Amino acid sequence: MTKEQLFAQIIQKQSYLCIGLDTDLQKIPPHLRDSEDPVFEFNRRIIDATADLCVAYKPNIAFYEALGPKGWISLEKTLHYIPENIFTIADAKRGDIGNTSELYARAFFENLSFDSITVAPYMGEDSVKPFLLKPDKWVILLALTSNPGSADFQLLQTDNGTTDYSRCLFENVLATSKAWGTDEQIMYVVGATRPDFIQRVRELVPHHFLLVPGVGAQGGSLAEISRLAMNQHCGLLVNSSRNIIYASSGTDFAEQARAAALAMQQEMAGYLNRYLSRK
Amino acid sequence: MTKEQLFAQIIQKQSYLCIGLDTDLQKIPPHLRDSEDPVFEFNRRIIDATADLCVAYKPNIAFYEALGPKGWISLEKTLHYIPENIFTIADAKRGDIGNTSELYARAFFENLSFDSITVAPYMGEDSVKPFLLKPDKWVILLALTSNPGSADFQLLQTDNGTTDYSRCLFENVLATSKAWGTDEQIMYVVGATRPDFIQRVRELVPHHFLLVPGVGAQGGSLAEISRLAMNQHCGLLVNSSRNIIYASSGTDFAEQARAAALAMQQEMAGYLNRYLSRK
Repeated sequence: MTKEQLFAQIIQKQSYLCIGLDTDLQKIPPHLRDSEDPVFEFNRRIIDATADLCVAYKPNIAFYEALGPKGWISLEKTLHYIPENIFTIADAKRGDIGNTSELYARAFFENLSFDSITVAPYMGEDSVKPFLLKPDKWVILLALTSNPGSADFQLLQTDNGTTDYSRCLFENVLATSKAWGTDEQIMYVVGATRPDFIQRVRELVPHHFLLVPGVGAQGGSLAEISRLAMNQHCGLLVNSSRNIIYASSGTDFAEQARAAALAMQQEMAGYLNRYLSRK
Repeated sequence: MTKEQLFAQIIQKQSYLCIGLDTDLQKIPPHLRDSEDPVFEFNRRIIDATADLCVAYKPNIAFYEALGPKGWISLEKTLHYIPENIFTIADAKRGDIGNTSELYARAFFENLSFDSITVAPYMGEDSVKPFLLKPDKWVILLALTSNPGSADFQLLQTDNGTTDYSRCLFENVLATSKAWGTDEQIMYVVGATRPDFIQRVRELVPHHFLLVPGVGAQGGSLAEISRLAMNQHCGLLVNSSRNIIYASSGTDFAEQARAAALAMQQEMAGYLNRYLSRK
């Protein structure tokens, strides 16, 4: 999917919501557990209930990998079920030496036809480049994550080689990696839990899309991230997982998921109206 | 497997060789491709030919994931086939927020019974800790990798909070993460391609095992890394993948793999004799 197509979806749906399909067998409603493929059955019903309200789905691969080969099959079925015009993100946080990253690219872009994959930057350019070789496929590089441990290394002050200036590791990641591809190939993970750094992110990557976790359960504010980080192509995909897919653990889980997604979409419509027009 | 048990294997076999099972359908000998599970068939014959010469096997998970659900099945069968007394490494380079890393830990430690998994440090402590909860299971944290891109971020100078001292990111990773567990739970990936940094690694983590890629195809020297980094419990697992498993592409691939592994084991026996006694 191109950047233009993604932006068109955002305008049409008045939404920049990404729904995280972090489907855990132990958390899905009991009445689904007897079906042949409970994980797919849950996802299918979540997708049916929310597809008109979101522009992206993001399965976290760990949840599928934890189930072995059958988890992989549930993931394949889920991906085929997602409507064509919705952006898909393999939240896999992969990254390895060049010839190995090529294989991960094959797994997620060819076998599974994801539009994008999250990638960890620690191993540098040759670990990321193999994900940038296919047209209309995206790398979403970890920059400033939403978890407490993000402070351990991402916020370390670094010396970028000049004597009068230093900046955090995540800023170095942004500044260095943005030369590896275009803003039609690379997005960045930037958590909503650290609004104090958003301005520095936007100074370095004004035109890139950001995938934003951390709204809701982790304490980030949709209002704040929208105000601080929206650009002229929206430039935001705000993720919500647990607050939507586990809004209810009863037989009404899909309706409640829809209600939670609708509340976010409506709030987002307001921010699009307010902040897109200011550009 | 405990550190003591691993060291006992090293002494018994006079080897600290780790063989990387980076099994690529396009590279295995043509005569195997018609078998029911060519990847497992190849691995089985490599294991039969080398199990007495190495102390660890390291399947890189990308090679299996690229094959979809059947790759996962080949991986399971391979893991069950590896003799109990050989250390197993899931070269997966995972790492995610806490509740997600728990699922990766379940996938690799419970479902697949690996002894260890490689983990990327970028997301910090809470992304690594879930892998440290099971007795005799190991995290192998990326510190200084063997690929060219390791220079992009791992060698950035960082400010550790004091005014008179700064060090590289990979040194910060070592210094910070060694407090997250013991040297019976954590190992580090340190590439043989950067011998100039080995002394600094050993100053920070004198007692930890290092998993060393980069010998052979990538240009690192077994002699040099052994001289610089061996400690009183050996403290090294030196990996070789392509040089061993693809030593021949003919029907003699297993014999040639054995010959290549034997040459490394014999060289290692010499270094063990020389450098363990100096302690």
